[in-house]
Amino acid sequence: MIELGPNQYGKSQIRLVKVSRGSEQHALRDLTVAISLEGDFEAAHVVGDNANVVATDTMKNTTYALAKDGLTGSIEGFGQLLAAHFLEFPQVTRATASIREHGWSPIPTSAGPARDTFVRAGGLTRVTSVSATGDGGTVESGIDDLVVMKTTRSSFEGFPRDRFTTLPESSDRLMATKISATWGYAAGSAADATFDFDAAFGGVRDTLLDVFATHFSPSVQNSVWVIGRAILEAQPAIDWVRMVLPNLHHWLVDMQPFEMSNEREIYISTTEPHGLIEATVRRGSSG
Amino acid sequence: MIELGPNQYGKSQIRLVKVSRGSEQHALRDLTVAISLEGDFEAAHVVGDNANVVATDTMKNTTYALAKDGLTGSIEGFGQLLAAHFLEFPQVTRATASIREHGWSPIPTSAGPARDTFVRAGGLTRVTSVSATGDGGTVESGIDDLVVMKTTRSSFEGFPRDRFTTLPESSDRLMATKISATWGYAAGSAADATFDFDAAFGGVRDTLLDVFATHFSPSVQNSVWVIGRAILEAQPAIDWVRMVLPNLHHWLVDMQPFEMSNEREIYISTTEPHGLIEATVRRGSSG
Amino acid sequence: MIELGPNQYGKSQIRLVKVSRGSEQHALRDLTVAISLEGDFEAAHVVGDNANVVATDTMKNTTYALAKDGLTGSIEGFGQLLAAHFLEFPQVTRATASIREHGWSPIPTSAGPARDTFVRAGGLTRVTSVSATGDGGTVESGIDDLVVMKTTRSSFEGFPRDRFTTLPESSDRLMATKISATWGYAAGSAADATFDFDAAFGGVRDTLLDVFATHFSPSVQNSVWVIGRAILEAQPAIDWVRMVLPNLHHWLVDMQPFEMSNEREIYISTTEPHGLIEATVRRGSSG
Amino acid sequence: MIELGPNQYGKSQIRLVKVSRGSEQHALRDLTVAISLEGDFEAAHVVGDNANVVATDTMKNTTYALAKDGLTGSIEGFGQLLAAHFLEFPQVTRATASIREHGWSPIPTSAGPARDTFVRAGGLTRVTSVSATGDGGTVESGIDDLVVMKTTRSSFEGFPRDRFTTLPESSDRLMATKISATWGYAAGSAADATFDFDAAFGGVRDTLLDVFATHFSPSVQNSVWVIGRAILEAQPAIDWVRMVLPNLHHWLVDMQPFEMSNEREIYISTTEPHGLIEATVRRGSSG
Repeated sequence: MIELGPNQYGKSQIRLVKVSRGSEQHALRDLTVAISLEGDFEAAHVVGDNANVVATDTMKNTTYALAKDGLTGSIEGFGQLLAAHFLEFPQVTRATASIREHGWSPIPTSAGPARDTFVRAGGLTRVTSVSATGDGGTVESGIDDLVVMKTTRSSFEGFPRDRFTTLPESSDRLMATKISATWGYAAGSAADATFDFDAAFGGVRDTLLDVFATHFSPSVQNSVWVIGRAILEAQPAIDWVRMVLPNLHHWLVDMQPFEMSNEREIYISTTEPHGLIEATVRRGSSG
Repeated sequence: MIELGPNQYGKSQIRLVKVSRGSEQHALRDLTVAISLEGDFEAAHVVGDNANVVATDTMKNTTYALAKDGLTGSIEGFGQLLAAHFLEFPQVTRATASIREHGWSPIPTSAGPARDTFVRAGGLTRVTSVSATGDGGTVESGIDDLVVMKTTRSSFEGFPRDRFTTLPESSDRLMATKISATWGYAAGSAADATFDFDAAFGGVRDTLLDVFATHFSPSVQNSVWVIGRAILEAQPAIDWVRMVLPNLHHWLVDMQPFEMSNEREIYISTTEPHGLIEATVRRGSSG
Repeated sequence: MIELGPNQYGKSQIRLVKVSRGSEQHALRDLTVAISLEGDFEAAHVVGDNANVVATDTMKNTTYALAKDGLTGSIEGFGQLLAAHFLEFPQVTRATASIREHGWSPIPTSAGPARDTFVRAGGLTRVTSVSATGDGGTVESGIDDLVVMKTTRSSFEGFPRDRFTTLPESSDRLMATKISATWGYAAGSAADATFDFDAAFGGVRDTLLDVFATHFSPSVQNSVWVIGRAILEAQPAIDWVRMVLPNLHHWLVDMQPFEMSNEREIYISTTEPHGLIEATVRRGSSG
Repeated sequence: MIELGPNQYGKSQIRLVKVSRGSEQHALRDLTVAISLEGDFEAAHVVGDNANVVATDTMKNTTYALAKDGLTGSIEGFGQLLAAHFLEFPQVTRATASIREHGWSPIPTSAGPARDTFVRAGGLTRVTSVSATGDGGTVESGIDDLVVMKTTRSSFEGFPRDRFTTLPESSDRLMATKISATWGYAAGSAADATFDFDAAFGGVRDTLLDVFATHFSPSVQNSVWVIGRAILEAQPAIDWVRMVLPNLHHWLVDMQPFEMSNEREIYISTTEPHGLIEATVRRGSSG
């Protein structure tokens, strides 16, 4: 017998800009939103009956419409509003809103920050994925696109060698990565209407950067652990942190053929191939 | 207590070309390979001890070295060789090789197909992900980047309408998507050294294209079901098929302002926002 | 004194799909169009007077509207129609339509080619840029995204060596490139309403592939010359050919550390850095 | 007769990182460099004689080698060093070094800016293209990837209307663009070893942002003029400024179907199609 397994559907890449026109200062929000639903959609698949299929075009319209009054604070809060809205459809058992926020800053001018002109900020993207279900839901937030480099205090030594191993041990290498970190909020905090997601995000970001800068890294794996543990220690509302870190190798240029020395000064920056390290750090059940 | 959760690491984007120089005809293989390991890596994370950490550079070297004698048939077979190799490290409990094959064809010349000159084929990418564990393993293969369009015999009607619904019903719309399909081979077939992965791939591809072309689609969801069921019916060695299909909307241009008619002729092609439909079709436990 | 120099403006990335619903077989055209105008736009720049500024939104609308009856043959012909239309505005001295065509093929089914279902073809993109001016115009067409590789009969030897040269001479290397070729049609042919741009395109493509496959290449530079000359010899309506060819290096893997040989068999495929060779081959003034 | 026309060749995407390890603070430079040569390369093309063809691999090596002592100040200065080096080859008549600099900032930590750990800055890319020829050369510098938005004080009115015009007049629209600006330094300044390219770059960037923020824009064309003129007025060493500005349209969401108002608050952000405005502002010959 052939049957329908896990399935979901929705709308992706809903591009939304909201301008709040304060008399002194405009505020600019720029989001990319995706909506996804799970539920009773078997008839749509198996017999082509769309009676339960909320159109993805409607998801798009709803996102714009709810942004008018509902996008006033954190993306997590807006995600909760969207997820709760779609969970109201009786055929939906799980509604998920995934949001990426693109930062903008008022342009600095000779007369101070501009009140109505903005420059797109670089450096990182704040993201969240909020799910609503009949018995609650989850809020998972994160940081993407954060490219960082340590010019020293990174090593890679003591690894096993076999017939195919040519990498030399290194007690002082460059370490560059593009950080993707995701964390899960404890159910109680996520459900607490007074919880400050913006403050939590800022705290995680600051801890992450601070620990990345100050720790000595014997491996990317250890860095994930040290950073993840520090985040959990600083943020009681967070249950777990997952990091996915490419190791963007920088190779020292061999200048011997030019009769020149190269004391950890000139490097070839590469993107492929790259290492890829993924790990979750979490509060243990015995904790 | 804070503890290490699920973790894995490896090398991604290993770019490998192999040329087999037959006297009559060269053969060209072009792969992008990723290796990933799970196992006893807690010391690496928690205390910075790399004694168990096979260097990702070694994974890269090994991939090139094993390709010399081992890349002779399907990417699934090469993936099994790679996964088995890395499972031999005692600290490894799961080794995964993920491979994308980029197709090339001999250039057609006035004197027939060239024997040593090739053109990169477009149209689709064949992929596989092979895992080896102590008690066997899995082979999941797929098709990526297959962009297709139905110019008629696609509709979307009978969906629910609420305050935010503006999409009109359509009994004859364009349907365009970029197919990503993945399927899992039954354990017995995957472990059978005589199983013909190339033939199975060709069969799935042909069924997929044939059914996409010939069925009437009342929704993307139904198309996933109809195609997935046909694949399972044709391929006894396959346990499940998962498809992820963006709905790449094509909007009819409103030519009324120009005092022109537009009878399903001129469309605006869009990429964002887009629908996204995901579902698994599988053999049921009661089957 | 500060003045306005060269300027132009227009609309880019107009995505247009046209379906012609023949009773036996649908035809599908998929274009990306850009329109650009030069002319009397100084007041728009210098004093903010938009009286001469055809809105780029109007360019988009016009492209869709004219496609209804005007997109019936080659993209060059449609480009000429668009360019001529915009040249009719008295303030316009040069109108340019640039078009990229994305190929689609009927899906092959067990019952023959589908009549209304298509698969996006890979392999190359056909492009054109058509300009209209008061005294005529130009038609420049081309091929983009054509990725090809020679597995032998390519060398690079006899180049100068200095202190910074480490590249060994090679009498048998891989040569891979992504061909971008552009050619200019003679004014007489471009202005001839009976000229067959589709046949000319097919001829250039075939010559290009045939010569690439059959010649021995001592350098990318020489390949450009040999291919360009062959195109001009075969196509009297073409005045010049320009090619821009990245040299996508493939490096032989050093397997000596593994105590293995590698007789031009296993290569590392790279994209950066890459060589970049550009040259025009043309009919000489003395010709 | 068929002949060789304009031609050049070189190496692109040379990825270079330099770390200067000061005792108090590391400095990090991250460049993408391209080298391109023109000169006596006819024999390479026409007869396959490589005696004059400096290998592009040598260009790469040279870039790394000269960076060791030569990359100490502005990218313009390093570009001049590279271009002058390659002009020394007697067969070279023009050598061009094109450089993009990717910014990094010390990570802010609780103990102050990190001395050896950096975060990739977003927001803009600084670029230059330096050519050396027998009778001097040119230095053209620029800004790329600077995404900005005005939330008010932008309009588009008074444009001509024809049969295909549907765009309404707007006295208050969003204006978003990704600025690409290039400017040319006067020969005297470019040749002056004491000229401060970093200060000039900073001055242009500040003027550009300041004027973008403070002017009222009746069109993108007028913005190019107003910004370009301000740059030339502030920077006597600059002869001309060219800007290429996509108009990244933001469309007001029509909320009437939802019985909601939308007073310039909720917008759809789009990337295609987009307007594209290009113009040069320069010092006139009569100036």
